[in-house]
Amino acid sequence: MDSQRLQLLLEQVRGQSLSIPEAMEQMRHLPFEDLGFAKVDHHRAMRHGMPEVIFGKGKTPEQILGIAEALLARSSNLLVTRAAPEAAELLLSKIHAAEHFPLSGVVRVWRERTKTGRGKVAVVCAGTSDLPVMEEARLTAETMGNDVDALADVGVAGLHRLLHYRTQLVEAKVIVVCAGMEGALPSVVGGLVSCPVIAVPTSVGYGASFHGLAALLGMLNSCASNVTVVNIDNGFGAGYVASLINKG
Amino acid sequence: MDSQRLQLLLEQVRGQSLSIPEAMEQMRHLPFEDLGFAKVDHHRAMRHGMPEVIFGKGKTPEQILGIAEALLARSSNLLVTRAAPEAAELLLSKIHAAEHFPLSGVVRVWRERTKTGRGKVAVVCAGTSDLPVMEEARLTAETMGNDVDALADVGVAGLHRLLHYRTQLVEAKVIVVCAGMEGALPSVVGGLVSCPVIAVPTSVGYGASFHGLAALLGMLNSCASNVTVVNIDNGFGAGYVASLINKG
Amino acid sequence: MDSQRLQLLLEQVRGQSLSIPEAMEQMRHLPFEDLGFAKVDHHRAMRHGMPEVIFGKGKTPEQILGIAEALLARSSNLLVTRAAPEAAELLLSKIHAAEHFPLSGVVRVWRERTKTGRGKVAVVCAGTSDLPVMEEARLTAETMGNDVDALADVGVAGLHRLLHYRTQLVEAKVIVVCAGMEGALPSVVGGLVSCPVIAVPTSVGYGASFHGLAALLGMLNSCASNVTVVNIDNGFGAGYVASLINKG
Amino acid sequence: MDSQRLQLLLEQVRGQSLSIPEAMEQMRHLPFEDLGFAKVDHHRAMRHGMPEVIFGKGKTPEQILGIAEALLARSSNLLVTRAAPEAAELLLSKIHAAEHFPLSGVVRVWRERTKTGRGKVAVVCAGTSDLPVMEEARLTAETMGNDVDALADVGVAGLHRLLHYRTQLVEAKVIVVCAGMEGALPSVVGGLVSCPVIAVPTSVGYGASFHGLAALLGMLNSCASNVTVVNIDNGFGAGYVASLINKG
Amino acid sequence: MDSQRLQLLLEQVRGQSLSIPEAMEQMRHLPFEDLGFAKVDHHRAMRHGMPEVIFGKGKTPEQILGIAEALLARSSNLLVTRAAPEAAELLLSKIHAAEHFPLSGVVRVWRERTKTGRGKVAVVCAGTSDLPVMEEARLTAETMGNDVDALADVGVAGLHRLLHYRTQLVEAKVIVVCAGMEGALPSVVGGLVSCPVIAVPTSVGYGASFHGLAALLGMLNSCASNVTVVNIDNGFGAGYVASLINKG
Amino acid sequence: MDSQRLQLLLEQVRGQSLSIPEAMEQMRHLPFEDLGFAKVDHHRAMRHGMPEVIFGKGKTPEQILGIAEALLARSSNLLVTRAAPEAAELLLSKIHAAEHFPLSGVVRVWRERTKTGRGKVAVVCAGTSDLPVMEEARLTAETMGNDVDALADVGVAGLHRLLHYRTQLVEAKVIVVCAGMEGALPSVVGGLVSCPVIAVPTSVGYGASFHGLAALLGMLNSCASNVTVVNIDNGFGAGYVASLINKG
Amino acid sequence: MDSQRLQLLLEQVRGQSLSIPEAMEQMRHLPFEDLGFAKVDHHRAMRHGMPEVIFGKGKTPEQILGIAEALLARSSNLLVTRAAPEAAELLLSKIHAAEHFPLSGVVRVWRERTKTGRGKVAVVCAGTSDLPVMEEARLTAETMGNDVDALADVGVAGLHRLLHYRTQLVEAKVIVVCAGMEGALPSVVGGLVSCPVIAVPTSVGYGASFHGLAALLGMLNSCASNVTVVNIDNGFGAGYVASLINKG
Amino acid sequence: MDSQRLQLLLEQVRGQSLSIPEAMEQMRHLPFEDLGFAKVDHHRAMRHGMPEVIFGKGKTPEQILGIAEALLARSSNLLVTRAAPEAAELLLSKIHAAEHFPLSGVVRVWRERTKTGRGKVAVVCAGTSDLPVMEEARLTAETMGNDVDALADVGVAGLHRLLHYRTQLVEAKVIVVCAGMEGALPSVVGGLVSCPVIAVPTSVGYGASFHGLAALLGMLNSCASNVTVVNIDNGFGAGYVASLINKG
Repeated sequence: MDSQRLQLLLEQVRGQSLSIPEAMEQMRHLPFEDLGFAKVDHHRAMRHGMPEVIFGKGKTPEQILGIAEALLARSSNLLVTRAAPEAAELLLSKIHAAEHFPLSGVVRVWRERTKTGRGKVAVVCAGTSDLPVMEEARLTAETMGNDVDALADVGVAGLHRLLHYRTQLVEAKVIVVCAGMEGALPSVVGGLVSCPVIAVPTSVGYGASFHGLAALLGMLNSCASNVTVVNIDNGFGAGYVASLINKG
Repeated sequence: MDSQRLQLLLEQVRGQSLSIPEAMEQMRHLPFEDLGFAKVDHHRAMRHGMPEVIFGKGKTPEQILGIAEALLARSSNLLVTRAAPEAAELLLSKIHAAEHFPLSGVVRVWRERTKTGRGKVAVVCAGTSDLPVMEEARLTAETMGNDVDALADVGVAGLHRLLHYRTQLVEAKVIVVCAGMEGALPSVVGGLVSCPVIAVPTSVGYGASFHGLAALLGMLNSCASNVTVVNIDNGFGAGYVASLINKG
Repeated sequence: MDSQRLQLLLEQVRGQSLSIPEAMEQMRHLPFEDLGFAKVDHHRAMRHGMPEVIFGKGKTPEQILGIAEALLARSSNLLVTRAAPEAAELLLSKIHAAEHFPLSGVVRVWRERTKTGRGKVAVVCAGTSDLPVMEEARLTAETMGNDVDALADVGVAGLHRLLHYRTQLVEAKVIVVCAGMEGALPSVVGGLVSCPVIAVPTSVGYGASFHGLAALLGMLNSCASNVTVVNIDNGFGAGYVASLINKG
Repeated sequence: MDSQRLQLLLEQVRGQSLSIPEAMEQMRHLPFEDLGFAKVDHHRAMRHGMPEVIFGKGKTPEQILGIAEALLARSSNLLVTRAAPEAAELLLSKIHAAEHFPLSGVVRVWRERTKTGRGKVAVVCAGTSDLPVMEEARLTAETMGNDVDALADVGVAGLHRLLHYRTQLVEAKVIVVCAGMEGALPSVVGGLVSCPVIAVPTSVGYGASFHGLAALLGMLNSCASNVTVVNIDNGFGAGYVASLINKG
Repeated sequence: MDSQRLQLLLEQVRGQSLSIPEAMEQMRHLPFEDLGFAKVDHHRAMRHGMPEVIFGKGKTPEQILGIAEALLARSSNLLVTRAAPEAAELLLSKIHAAEHFPLSGVVRVWRERTKTGRGKVAVVCAGTSDLPVMEEARLTAETMGNDVDALADVGVAGLHRLLHYRTQLVEAKVIVVCAGMEGALPSVVGGLVSCPVIAVPTSVGYGASFHGLAALLGMLNSCASNVTVVNIDNGFGAGYVASLINKG
Repeated sequence: MDSQRLQLLLEQVRGQSLSIPEAMEQMRHLPFEDLGFAKVDHHRAMRHGMPEVIFGKGKTPEQILGIAEALLARSSNLLVTRAAPEAAELLLSKIHAAEHFPLSGVVRVWRERTKTGRGKVAVVCAGTSDLPVMEEARLTAETMGNDVDALADVGVAGLHRLLHYRTQLVEAKVIVVCAGMEGALPSVVGGLVSCPVIAVPTSVGYGASFHGLAALLGMLNSCASNVTVVNIDNGFGAGYVASLINKG
Repeated sequence: MDSQRLQLLLEQVRGQSLSIPEAMEQMRHLPFEDLGFAKVDHHRAMRHGMPEVIFGKGKTPEQILGIAEALLARSSNLLVTRAAPEAAELLLSKIHAAEHFPLSGVVRVWRERTKTGRGKVAVVCAGTSDLPVMEEARLTAETMGNDVDALADVGVAGLHRLLHYRTQLVEAKVIVVCAGMEGALPSVVGGLVSCPVIAVPTSVGYGASFHGLAALLGMLNSCASNVTVVNIDNGFGAGYVASLINKG
Repeated sequence: MDSQRLQLLLEQVRGQSLSIPEAMEQMRHLPFEDLGFAKVDHHRAMRHGMPEVIFGKGKTPEQILGIAEALLARSSNLLVTRAAPEAAELLLSKIHAAEHFPLSGVVRVWRERTKTGRGKVAVVCAGTSDLPVMEEARLTAETMGNDVDALADVGVAGLHRLLHYRTQLVEAKVIVVCAGMEGALPSVVGGLVSCPVIAVPTSVGYGASFHGLAALLGMLNSCASNVTVVNIDNGFGAGYVASLINKG
């Protein structure tokens, strides 16, 4: 811990060289603790209104568990994304109330379930194969305290399916749209609604989809002005920003 | 005009086969008029809370003027982006109250100036050369009824400049960040604040910047979870979504 | 000319070593004449049911005129695509009945106007800026003897505009769809109709559109199974294949 | 099911606010049912003259079986593409009359075998390694009611092989050409015939073939005007469009 | 000049510490003179059997003239490639016997015209627009002492044109094939002959030709085993290697 | 077999409508036999002075054996490239005198060992990891009747190693240079010698080598004029062309 | 100016809540002044031992002059890179002692010429066309107080030229190597010396050089371990880092 | 061995045709020995102040052991990078004092531990997943005789973590910065310090990180002038150059 700097800060306050508000501002940007393999940042929850999220890929089950336990000591909720099956198994065996969502690889602890969003978040996907990314977005938004509407398999080649849900789309405060292949769905949804649309290209496709590049480029070039884009398969990021917008 | 469909609709209402709400819903998606070279969509203002915007690139001065006049007959404000100098000149000579912003190539008519946003929109750029894109974002957000704070030349290689403005950044409801070259600024800003950050890669740079591709990829891979991205140099899109978020 | 081979062929026929049908088959693949800078192929009209088309880009006005005159000596119709203004001017001054279409750069001689297609060809474009490519497709299909329906500015972000024309789309025998930016329109049109859709990516856009690459990839990954694709801005090729399909 | 909308529609007809043709038109775009993981669209067969096709990749054997059974309740024929061996095994054990084609991974139910095409579809491939893609195209066209001619291993480096089959090529109504490596075959075939040629780049090759990209680019730039292109390895799409053209 | 090293070398010979053959070998790799802006290498003619060639692009007319005069003091022939019109004009006004070829931008001094090749070099191009690159290849091979056969406009979509020249192709010792767009011609030519084929992709094309990239990839993936490739538009390099092979 | 055409040809000869030389010329381009999965071309050996080569990748062991036996019935030598271990095992157990080279995956039958090349072929590689590609080139050239010199591990970062072998390089009639990473070796070798250099980029490297793309681009841009390039890892093609040049 | 923060800082020092060293540390990261269009950072000279450098591209002559004058008020030396001719002209007319280097577009004020480097910096380029980039590197290193050796036109295809200068290379403390086309020179130089080599890819070349991409990839994959790379054409960056290393 | 050249050299010295300094210079570039599969270069240690390093990837455990033993016969230290687990196991069982670092796959023999660097080398990484690359850099610099400071998990989205270590960064003589995803860390670090920064893009990330390409491009476009770049994941190269700079 960073006790010396804290001590100094407080001494400055006592010595009246720093006001209370200034000291608090400085404290907001200071502390983190060292687990050896990663610096856990307890203040992020405070700053972003969100529990720490662990990106599971490339970490061992033991590393994930270590970080998870450090976080849960102070936080009610926890989200682990892209957890390998062994990591998920270890977490479920050690952490009470952890749930596993195998489609997306999310492990979640959801103890604090108060709804804090102002309206609804809609989460939409084009085809069956986009479901894992959509699930990651949905769980993220839900765990962050939002009411979430999920609409699956409403791709643009069958427009009547999408138009069927027009009311639900129009009522949302923000919409996350996941699509692979040509990535056309965000443009069509964006044209139907007035709220912000967050487009998530998925790596679904083959050949010239180039693992999501085609969808990504399509979304960046959307002719609908209310569309912004996140990285390929980044359901978490989309759900996260959707939650910030819905709470803003 | 689409009078036959409208007539039919009203007849259905009169014949009680359609309720008033249903009829209104259907009307929202119907009408547009045909100028020969472009279908002007008067309903978009109603749907998105925004006047029609004319993308000037690739249109002749006369085409732009024609669309602009059709729009101004029913709307108070108008934004023309990427207007060539000749187009700007024609518009200023014909349209009362049109202003020209040569850096970004925007022409604006701003008759209705009520502030409708809930908080502030901050618009930030990394270097002097990013100013044109930032101006497009700023004018868009401003014309849509937002209070805008603009912070220029606060790139990451001189971190003290950025940290100097931390208070203004933390107070914004949403932040637009324009940066070329390596596009690192949105990640750094995203880590300092809790609100959504809309990243705009600019085509500023040379060599391996590949006309903005490096910045675009950097922003899509941001390690800050509150960042979403729009197309290269798309200041308008960023300002537009920022306004939607600020009003949401 | 290839008189010696022809002589031999006829001698073989006379000597009864070759039957009449075989000789005709061999003749179909033989002759062309040499203008010095290009070999004009008079048989193509016979093989493809189409007059020779001159791709004007990269040829001097004089070269184009030379080829055009050689072709018009035996063919009623002629299409010159991507003719520079000087080339167009020269052709109009020298060739009776030549028309110029400056938007697309097409010069056309249209003396034989019999309709030979079985149904209608629809030619559709997403935005005003796609008009040049659409015009090239329209003129090609028209000159090849087809009844053509042209629908402009029906992009996916304003779905009601497209749905307005559903009847015309459903009635076409084949549809050419030109779109830049994200190139989503062919997927949406493809899902509305049962006929083949030929998608033409246009180089309209900026930034990550990469001069039509985004639209091209989008179209190749279309989730609608009735879509095939031609090169970026290749309105001619699309109109050509549409005509072959409509006549087939 | 969407019974309320249907009821309303019929009431409008009865109330004479909607004519019979209009009601039928609206019905064509309405119904689908929800299996939980995918919306099955029974109307597509009616719209495209084709049984529903299941894209097997990325779906579990159980998901595929579920969709297949729902479809076969109302349709005579069924095509599953890119079925993994376990999925194929499950389908064959549960569905009477299902056939498996291991080279391409297609599973087919072919109960209704009426020929409905106007002429012949030729399906051609350049080398032995392109056979899987060609088989997918051949089975698709065949199951859709076409007479199919298949010509394998006729690549451009041994031109005499291809010329040997010239008669068969000239007689086809539409030709599907599958080729990897440099993808030159469609251009050569396109120059020999007058009908539309659908080019399928395959991912066959190594090094600078970049998994089919070289062939794809080659085909998009074909100097033969009667060539259109589908996605890499998309034999299904090519066979599908070929069938639409042959029936048109 | 490098007189000290030369002096040392000769002293070693005189001192019998170096044999005559060794000394000559070392001398072959030593000398060059300094003009200030470029080191002219008089020995290359000796090493490669070729006069120095000046790559004109990016050099001022005066620089080119300076190098040319230094070279012509010792060499009979000279080739300047990609000379801008002003450079060509200066060279023609100052150097007796210089010829200018505006299509390719070559300036040539051809005083020594002995044929030293063993057989014929064939130079082939696919379309009219490939002529500049073909001319550069032809002039290079010719100036290096080869008998050259040039065959223009024999692209693969009109196979009969190419087959017409089969005898000339079969008789060549080495063939240079220039082609843009899909770059299929080298594969077809390579399959017809037994000699080495040097493929030159040209930047002819548009859209997805990506300035010659499509042709380049096509040629690198040629299914004909006797094909090697040089850089896009590198007619000089192809003619140069063809000459080396023909003399070998 | 193509007996009818052959019969016709002979009848024409007997009927004196075709001369003996013409008939032989036509026969050279005709026959091939059909094994069901691949058309074996017995004439290629005659045309290219080379036994048929089987590209093993993507073929089953049984397919390879079938083709191999058909070929060996008429040819002394055989080369199978990129044979998987199981294919190699099958070939060795069934074909007398077959050798296996596991590093490159080549299986060879080398019964006719007459040297027919005019000089030496040098085969060079930059690093230990390029050995597989170099071996494929070496075996190809050797089996085609050339005297081959192999020089391994002479990369440009240790120039003294390369210069050590200068005599051997200068004496070769043609040189194959295999290199991964930056692919600089062909340029350096090309500058030391006067003969043609065939550059083979290898997929050796990591990160920004992009599986051989960096080496490929480097070689295509070589500043040495005597360098041509083949596909990434295409040792066979390089050895093949080297043999053609050495025999020419 | 940031006077309030400075005042606070000093008050804290006076109040003994901050030590002198701490205050100085904080001051190092604080001040900058606002010219309206760019924040000039006077402390960078102190931090990096280098005067502020103005990147001229994309700035108006007046903007450049304004920044230049602000900087020269406190600094002896100044470097403007990529100044357009008009900007250079304005600077020379207004600023005493400014020199212009048209090849690279550098404008320099060099009033303080003390040599502060420990050894020599060598700056090397492969061909005549790389001279502009090399000049930018040379001027940067020189103005920062280094003794610079410049060696031009020593590309790898004429190895004897490079080896001629081996002594000068071996004696340098750090070497900047500029090369376009295949970018092989840094690997060869890197293998000859023991010091760090900074590679600068230049955009010199054509076709598959892709404006310097080929050279960039080559350098990143260098087999010499002492090579690092900067952006395409970034002579300034290379000279800058070379100076830091030479002073370190 | 190269005894004949050595003998000649000494005879020249004895014969006084070569001075002692010249002979030594020539000897520095001559000798290497041949193990059959790789030429081991014992002089490199002398030239670069570094033991030979074995790049383990693509070599068999036996090959690595063979090279390692040849090197250790004359050198105290040895580094094997990217050793597969089996290779590491073999080396540890056969070579006394060998250590294994599984995270990065390094095997090291560190018998000579004298510190020869002038100052400290700092090695920094952005996230937990960058640790393997950072370890490779750290071990390389350490084994080459440098005092190394390692700072992990200090990515830009949590700026306070990085600023916490500002003192350590400012004190280093050279800094290696490893980062994946957007690769922004080197720019931020570069702006905080005055020493050279060597940026190592890592392949950490997903989607549009394209295996490190996004980070690579970001670093090449860094707005901090003291940054140079090495290949993706090339921790060894970065540590190597850092050591050269620290010793220079």
